[in-house]
Amino acid sequence: MLGCGTVGREVVRLLREHADELAARAGAPVELAGVAVRRPHKHADLGDLLTDNAAGLVTRDDVDVVVEVIGGIEPARTLLLEALKAGKSVVTANKALLADDGPALAEAADASGVDLYYEAAVAAAIPLLRSLRESLAGDRITRVAGIVNGTTNFILSAMTASGSSFSEALEEATRLGYAEADPSADVDGYDAASKAAILASLAFHTRVTANDVHCEGIRSVTASDITAAAGMGCVIKLVAICERTPPDGDIPESVSARVYPAMIPAAHPLASVDGAFNAVFVEAEAAGQMMFYGQGAGGAPTASAVLGDIVAVARNRVGGGRAPRESAYASLPVRAMGSVRTRYHVSLDVDDRAGVLAAISGEFAHRGVSIAAVRQTGGGNGGAAARLVVVTHAAPEAALAATVEVLAGLDAVRVVDSVLRVEDLGRKGVAG
Amino acid sequence: MLGCGTVGREVVRLLREHADELAARAGAPVELAGVAVRRPHKHADLGDLLTDNAAGLVTRDDVDVVVEVIGGIEPARTLLLEALKAGKSVVTANKALLADDGPALAEAADASGVDLYYEAAVAAAIPLLRSLRESLAGDRITRVAGIVNGTTNFILSAMTASGSSFSEALEEATRLGYAEADPSADVDGYDAASKAAILASLAFHTRVTANDVHCEGIRSVTASDITAAAGMGCVIKLVAICERTPPDGDIPESVSARVYPAMIPAAHPLASVDGAFNAVFVEAEAAGQMMFYGQGAGGAPTASAVLGDIVAVARNRVGGGRAPRESAYASLPVRAMGSVRTRYHVSLDVDDRAGVLAAISGEFAHRGVSIAAVRQTGGGNGGAAARLVVVTHAAPEAALAATVEVLAGLDAVRVVDSVLRVEDLGRKGVAG
Repeated sequence: MLGCGTVGREVVRLLREHADELAARAGAPVELAGVAVRRPHKHADLGDLLTDNAAGLVTRDDVDVVVEVIGGIEPARTLLLEALKAGKSVVTANKALLADDGPALAEAADASGVDLYYEAAVAAAIPLLRSLRESLAGDRITRVAGIVNGTTNFILSAMTASGSSFSEALEEATRLGYAEADPSADVDGYDAASKAAILASLAFHTRVTANDVHCEGIRSVTASDITAAAGMGCVIKLVAICERTPPDGDIPESVSARVYPAMIPAAHPLASVDGAFNAVFVEAEAAGQMMFYGQGAGGAPTASAVLGDIVAVARNRVGGGRAPRESAYASLPVRAMGSVRTRYHVSLDVDDRAGVLAAISGEFAHRGVSIAAVRQTGGGNGGAAARLVVVTHAAPEAALAATVEVLAGLDAVRVVDSVLRVEDLGRKGVAG
Repeated sequence: MLGCGTVGREVVRLLREHADELAARAGAPVELAGVAVRRPHKHADLGDLLTDNAAGLVTRDDVDVVVEVIGGIEPARTLLLEALKAGKSVVTANKALLADDGPALAEAADASGVDLYYEAAVAAAIPLLRSLRESLAGDRITRVAGIVNGTTNFILSAMTASGSSFSEALEEATRLGYAEADPSADVDGYDAASKAAILASLAFHTRVTANDVHCEGIRSVTASDITAAAGMGCVIKLVAICERTPPDGDIPESVSARVYPAMIPAAHPLASVDGAFNAVFVEAEAAGQMMFYGQGAGGAPTASAVLGDIVAVARNRVGGGRAPRESAYASLPVRAMGSVRTRYHVSLDVDDRAGVLAAISGEFAHRGVSIAAVRQTGGGNGGAAARLVVVTHAAPEAALAATVEVLAGLDAVRVVDSVLRVEDLGRKGVAG
């Protein structure tokens, strides 16, 4: 095992406490051969198992499978490529590495005829990846969408419950241990984007890397956005959406993967996913819509997924099988974000005078963005500012962005207060 | 393929429409070699593929995998045992057969070194079985509980929504195609019991057959039960519950599997599962609580699961692997229903006079059944009957049954109107 943090310690505990059961299930004992850590003195209870020589451990003769729970790109990548080259199977929870360079790992595993499993990389123990990779291998998946980052979900839940600002909610999340000292990977959406890349790759049999994922975090979500969402019968969640879209004019069949805060209907099952939980909807042509829900992070749930993969590797060694290989035959193009269609909620402060609404709605119409609903509040005192909220039908990102840019330059528009996407996620219930 | 009904026709359609994709995923073409049906003239579009000689088809040299979608015990069992003996892998959606005689199929598959897959047997395309069998193979599952029969869920949802009686709701379900002409397998709980046996076997590594499952259907649920549930902040659902219970006094660690209508909190996620949908909670020591949700029946969703299994068999043939074998090493005893502990809602019509409540609560106390709440309504007019509702803490089935028997014989008790279990299913929120 490489690394021995929160997840690693749980892996060690489960390997020890459930040794007999694991042996019965795998068909052979599963033994911990060594643990490579940077500071061995911190893990005295592991005794002779400890080493600071990770490179030596991953190629040792008595090692059959390398379990990586270090995280991050390096040294994990080099160590795992070495391990695979040396004929060791790999179980990893490393979403960043998989999203960055998964195909290189898959190719190395293939070249050596060994296994690469990574169930723990997305949504911890929720058995999402094996379901996409195996259970739904006979179906045509059209969408995978959900909440895959617990930290941001905790923060947005807190903002919704208490009306607090992003920074207040982040502070609380940090104090309670839900956010790390450097929260960027979570709050800027990178963690969710890595997971989206992995999900899209498996769902659509296409290589999708983190670079292909459009990613926006939640730093810019304000208390007034939360209030605006409530006014729409919605809540704001950081959603990861992987979609396959049929050919559309000049655009061929393509996939998109994106992560951003969006309004979703309060009646949607995802809306009630609170705190550190994850929930993911999967839609497939024959299977229809399915939901997976559970703890998407934490030492024990992540270790559960790692252990499941270890048993799979052991069963393969005993029974002569192999993990499913990378399946990227479809090679669908990744759709440019500009042509991805979603609905929008645009909030503007405008002069309260005749003709303003006509001018603004004209700019939307001019760019082919169809308006579903308009609401104006405030104003009416001559010269005061009014608040205008425009909700659109589904429109291409590029058309909406161009419209907003023009609106911001109009004399009558004092400020474009916020632009938020509205995602129905297959359920009805949003105004407009 | 054996049989060509609703599911079989969808399997044929998907095999044809997605032939290229399936070949890319499996690593080899997946070809339909033949379809055995009783009345070949009904399926003219299948042409030369059709045969009425099922026994001949399952041992034919050009057949690698037998897909069984006939249902029922015979002739399915004989045909599948023949197929396995002849070295053919089997994919089946047959819950009744698996719950009745699964171990015999597993042993036959083992003896020939071939695969036995049956994802479609429970909850259609919701990838529940592979998750229990593989993804959670490193964890210790403590409970699997949920709604696994769409017909009864439709009927109970209809009764709750409209206040209709069981027979009115059943009539509507039949008219809309949600219930079969002979609805017994569904409404008497046998279908759910078969699924519970399969789930318990996989979750607890123990052979659990349909005979081991305590099974009550929904025929006796009345409109007034539904109203009583609403008064408790609950709804009535037909639940399947598979539990592992730690040693308790003289009773060793054991498992229980049971199916019955129960009150569950209206705020519980299972309560909002409407119509023909299935939802199952899985709890494991490390993974915590997870939920799976989706369409649990129907031609296309069931076919999706069958196709996933076909791809798994094909991948195994190409790559040299094997389906996980039966895992029954734990051999835990099945707990007698009398010692299973649940909470109860008991509704009685009693004489409205002094001392009645004391007498009744004395009978509960005498048998160790602790009362959580009592509510009395009506009466007060001297000699009129009052309605008494008693909600208990968790108590053994046998103690509750004995109490109810004695209550029914008390002079002051006019009638025991209903006895319903109350299941919290791991969530708080029920009165008492």
